[in-house]
Amino acid sequence: MHDKIPEIRIEETDRGLVHPQERVDDLQYKGLRIIQNPKAFRFGMDAVLLSDFVHVRPGDRVVDFGTGTGILPILLSGRVNRATFSAFEIQADMADMARRSVVLNTLEDRIEVFPMDLRESPVRLGHNSQDVVVCNPPYGKQGSTLKNPNESLSAARHEGDCSLGEIVKSAQLLLKNGGRLAMVFPAFRMLELFDTMRQVKLEPKRVRLVYPDEKTPPNILLAEAVKGARSQLHWLSPLIVHDEMGRETAEIDRIYHRLPESL
Amino acid sequence: MHDKIPEIRIEETDRGLVHPQERVDDLQYKGLRIIQNPKAFRFGMDAVLLSDFVHVRPGDRVVDFGTGTGILPILLSGRVNRATFSAFEIQADMADMARRSVVLNTLEDRIEVFPMDLRESPVRLGHNSQDVVVCNPPYGKQGSTLKNPNESLSAARHEGDCSLGEIVKSAQLLLKNGGRLAMVFPAFRMLELFDTMRQVKLEPKRVRLVYPDEKTPPNILLAEAVKGARSQLHWLSPLIVHDEMGRETAEIDRIYHRLPESL
Repeated sequence: MHDKIPEIRIEETDRGLVHPQERVDDLQYKGLRIIQNPKAFRFGMDAVLLSDFVHVRPGDRVVDFGTGTGILPILLSGRVNRATFSAFEIQADMADMARRSVVLNTLEDRIEVFPMDLRESPVRLGHNSQDVVVCNPPYGKQGSTLKNPNESLSAARHEGDCSLGEIVKSAQLLLKNGGRLAMVFPAFRMLELFDTMRQVKLEPKRVRLVYPDEKTPPNILLAEAVKGARSQLHWLSPLIVHDEMGRETAEIDRIYHRLPESL
Repeated sequence: MHDKIPEIRIEETDRGLVHPQERVDDLQYKGLRIIQNPKAFRFGMDAVLLSDFVHVRPGDRVVDFGTGTGILPILLSGRVNRATFSAFEIQADMADMARRSVVLNTLEDRIEVFPMDLRESPVRLGHNSQDVVVCNPPYGKQGSTLKNPNESLSAARHEGDCSLGEIVKSAQLLLKNGGRLAMVFPAFRMLELFDTMRQVKLEPKRVRLVYPDEKTPPNILLAEAVKGARSQLHWLSPLIVHDEMGRETAEIDRIYHRLPESL
């Protein structure tokens, strides 16, 4: 899915933070902006849907696995006051770009970017120390998709060396009891995701399916698992992206902050 | 959910088949009719949705667990030519009423009603002998719901003595390899259902969620598991019952045969 965020003019004061070939996009939400490189991986609708779906409370300590551009902690910092974020990104250049977006938004006191493998996060941050882990992982099944010749794109779109099991296990180590792992994942792999979560006592609790339109099967699953919870699914209403006329629905407008939530 | 089937005048020729306090309802589909007792359990929307969802092919041998009024085999007999049906119903009076509905529709050569516990079905019909099992079970969790003082209603709405595990195991014994178990079940119990199925190598494959409307969580799950299949979910489009105006959607109209499928 494409992003729908217009490029904005790079201001003189930003020039030190923005590299050639990069651009600054206005998130149209609380003045937040993000640096992206149009030739490398750019954030998509999945990340925006996940930022809307996840429960983050004031004061929460939140970890983002594979932060990419930094979109999730940046959006969530606008949504939830006083939550703090640790964003892991294994690609050094991408991590540096995310760090510069944090500076661009003067969020250095709330978001820390770690240019590290997410599997190092439990040792780095401490076991049982976090309230929330979010992850918008690359979707290709390990070994099942063609590698992209563009290395940056490839690492973001494929699971590469880090398996789903390692992502979930790392989250389990990081989370406090009652802490939450929120992920976006292909709908057809739901049982694999849930099995992997339950093997380490992360119980799937809140689930929302994303349907491209009302006549089409869901392609994306938003799922939140709770460490140590008992088994019972709490389904949410369907997230339908386009109406029968092909226009984006009011729910998508709400999520993209183009309309007030009360409408 | 209520049924939406108008009562029709009992014809003189039906009188021998229809008991006092019973009525004959027109299914408005291929001239099919059904006997119901308004004071006992009557079929609901769930059964109609399941009859639309399940894959039945010409020539298939189909078993219905807990047939109640006989609604599922009667509807499916109209939908699929040459399929034959074995309908199990433990309540003798209900089984007799279902049998009389079969006679009313002159379907005796295609539908046989067994006034028996469904757990006897594998011995009665033979292991690995059936193509499809359908089941619209009572929803209350064993021991978790109040017993209904009306016994007929109670047996139909609660699992009573027969557990989910026994239903699924009986289906597994009956089905050929590649055979299909189709069930309607509460959406919040999806993982319990899928776990129970997978324990006996019935793999959930086709899944559809039923949403009361576009802004409401799904209450019902339609699921089809395949004996011996490999793990991969095939989601269907959302089944939304009411539109934003509170009217039933075109999809519900299609399922109730009020509009041609081509619309």
